[in-house]
Amino acid sequence: MSADSPEARTAAHEIGRLLRPDLRGRSPYGAPQLDVPVRLNTNENSYPVPEVIVRAVMAALEDDIRSLNRYPDREFTDLRAVLTSYLGQQSGVRVRPEQVWAGNGSNEVLSHLVQAFGGHGRTALGFTPSYSMHPIITATLGTTWADGMRESGTFELTAEAAAEQARAHDPSIVFLCSPNNPTGTALPFEVIGAVLDAAPNAVVVVDEAYAEFARPGTRSALTLLEGNPRLVVTRTMSKAFAFAGGRLGYLVADPALVDALRLVRLPYHLSTPTQTIARVALQHADLLLATVEAIKAERDRIVDGLAGMGLAPVASDSNFVLFGGLADAHATWQALLEAGVLVRDVGIPHHLRVTAGTPAETSAFLEAMGRLAPEHRLEQEPA
Amino acid sequence: MSADSPEARTAAHEIGRLLRPDLRGRSPYGAPQLDVPVRLNTNENSYPVPEVIVRAVMAALEDDIRSLNRYPDREFTDLRAVLTSYLGQQSGVRVRPEQVWAGNGSNEVLSHLVQAFGGHGRTALGFTPSYSMHPIITATLGTTWADGMRESGTFELTAEAAAEQARAHDPSIVFLCSPNNPTGTALPFEVIGAVLDAAPNAVVVVDEAYAEFARPGTRSALTLLEGNPRLVVTRTMSKAFAFAGGRLGYLVADPALVDALRLVRLPYHLSTPTQTIARVALQHADLLLATVEAIKAERDRIVDGLAGMGLAPVASDSNFVLFGGLADAHATWQALLEAGVLVRDVGIPHHLRVTAGTPAETSAFLEAMGRLAPEHRLEQEPA
Repeated sequence: MSADSPEARTAAHEIGRLLRPDLRGRSPYGAPQLDVPVRLNTNENSYPVPEVIVRAVMAALEDDIRSLNRYPDREFTDLRAVLTSYLGQQSGVRVRPEQVWAGNGSNEVLSHLVQAFGGHGRTALGFTPSYSMHPIITATLGTTWADGMRESGTFELTAEAAAEQARAHDPSIVFLCSPNNPTGTALPFEVIGAVLDAAPNAVVVVDEAYAEFARPGTRSALTLLEGNPRLVVTRTMSKAFAFAGGRLGYLVADPALVDALRLVRLPYHLSTPTQTIARVALQHADLLLATVEAIKAERDRIVDGLAGMGLAPVASDSNFVLFGGLADAHATWQALLEAGVLVRDVGIPHHLRVTAGTPAETSAFLEAMGRLAPEHRLEQEPA
Repeated sequence: MSADSPEARTAAHEIGRLLRPDLRGRSPYGAPQLDVPVRLNTNENSYPVPEVIVRAVMAALEDDIRSLNRYPDREFTDLRAVLTSYLGQQSGVRVRPEQVWAGNGSNEVLSHLVQAFGGHGRTALGFTPSYSMHPIITATLGTTWADGMRESGTFELTAEAAAEQARAHDPSIVFLCSPNNPTGTALPFEVIGAVLDAAPNAVVVVDEAYAEFARPGTRSALTLLEGNPRLVVTRTMSKAFAFAGGRLGYLVADPALVDALRLVRLPYHLSTPTQTIARVALQHADLLLATVEAIKAERDRIVDGLAGMGLAPVASDSNFVLFGGLADAHATWQALLEAGVLVRDVGIPHHLRVTAGTPAETSAFLEAMGRLAPEHRLEQEPA
């Protein structure tokens, strides 16, 4: 049976009829997974896991594989303990294990939050452009998405603008993202407190997926948790930790909020190997995070290089750079792909997003972009 | 801050106020995870993974661990191919990769189905007692649960009874479970066709988590897939495959139905190690499934042994036995626990569920139950 046989067409029509009405016509999330020499499109860490960690993980896994006949620890007790001590060391904020929750990627902990505190007739507010999964997770779980605004051009979000929009929507969930993806800049710290005040019925989620890359002096929302039971900070091991394939995201919040997530998680959601691999990696956090400074240097080189080409990079606290000043972003994306460099078209006109890779990858991108810039640059209006 | 400090009480009250109203007062899923010598409460496979498979998995994992900096294959292409060939060999039904979908346990593939085809204002119908996660997944995802009935005492479900209830509810999803958990018996095959006819707006899910343990001659719903785009068969590697800790559940359906699930899954939901571990295990399916016959023999020994004690075991096609005839199921559960044997109180009055373990585990259970039976048996009314 081929995909366009009469039977296949009948089946597709039948499934379309049964699909949840608000999902009809939607496209699945789909950053292209292409086999290209230089992949700078999903903000992965370009450095492989160091050999000493590979050996430690392998040693810890053997017993796990032998005992896969048993269900995992549903409460991931050992992993929580290690996440707790990592957070204490990294942020200086004392956190207890019952404040920590984890999932298969931060997407899963975000979906637990939406399930517990959203739902039909409730609204989640975010400030676009931001992490594209916030509206997707919200909508696929049947919660209404409210598309808040950033300042056009700079993509900045002030405390006043955020609070005003929070008051207007009375949301049940507010997503803040700091450093923001895809724009790269950390949020002014006062936005968080302003939103907590302006949205008294909301769980306020600060998505800090890229926190480890922030410029010196950037404060984490972890420092605000005490006394704020409606505040949640989410983190991931996919970026600074070079751990995207291991799928481990986590959050920190009040113990009562964390406890509520047990109502909506699927039991045994973290496999035994997932728990072990993440635990051992966290026990080597210093070594895994050793690439962060190198990546930040490449990020700064990208910002400088793009500015020198007459393009418009946005200030970055992340492992990526959003840059504007392109006549036709998709045409530039295609031309870079043909030059062997995969970057991300995030759907913002005249802009593309590029991940800071190794020095060689960064050079490959900058060289290709330098060749393309004269032709691909947005011409300025004559003065 | 202790759990009953004023601050903790204020936080708990605040979180209760923000929680989705229909979740308030619910308890999380929670089969006790106790450290007991003989654990026969979650239908795990008591046999550890054979050494040859442990070594093959470890060999395949090393490169994965090194490359965890990269995201997993979002479409789990290699795993799908291996699942496809396993299903062809095991069931004799030819299946194509685009008909196969997988998740972190069958709970996750079930939740994808509920997200795609349920939703606010829609109803999912199941026939209680059945797998306890069917109503939990349905309700936590905001779909209405309709509690269908089985015949009291025998727990049987006839085609006529199922069809009549399906017509009455006009559900968007129907859950059938064959062999049924916690009762153990395979569904009469004609129930599936009757429900497909009686519920023309429903996706009909046949949960075959325990299919590999069925008695000879039991037909799989896989044989009905051709020409039935509304039919879904779910399976798991947690039971026969001795793979509960690896978290790999899957389903088989029409390619159009599988494609719709991509709208609701979280991207990269299966980690690279999860995909590899499951793939290598499936490549050794014959060896992993070698314990199935031994487990079936123990199951039959449990049925015979309990009947000999004057208790009332239900006919089983699974790796567990539900048995009635107890005066107070919870008191017997507690007494067995004190004897070092953990079984499952599934909430059916006068009944407990016990997993068929190794010969030694089965003997430990039968000996403990034999000692308890005279005192714990439900006394019959005098004739």
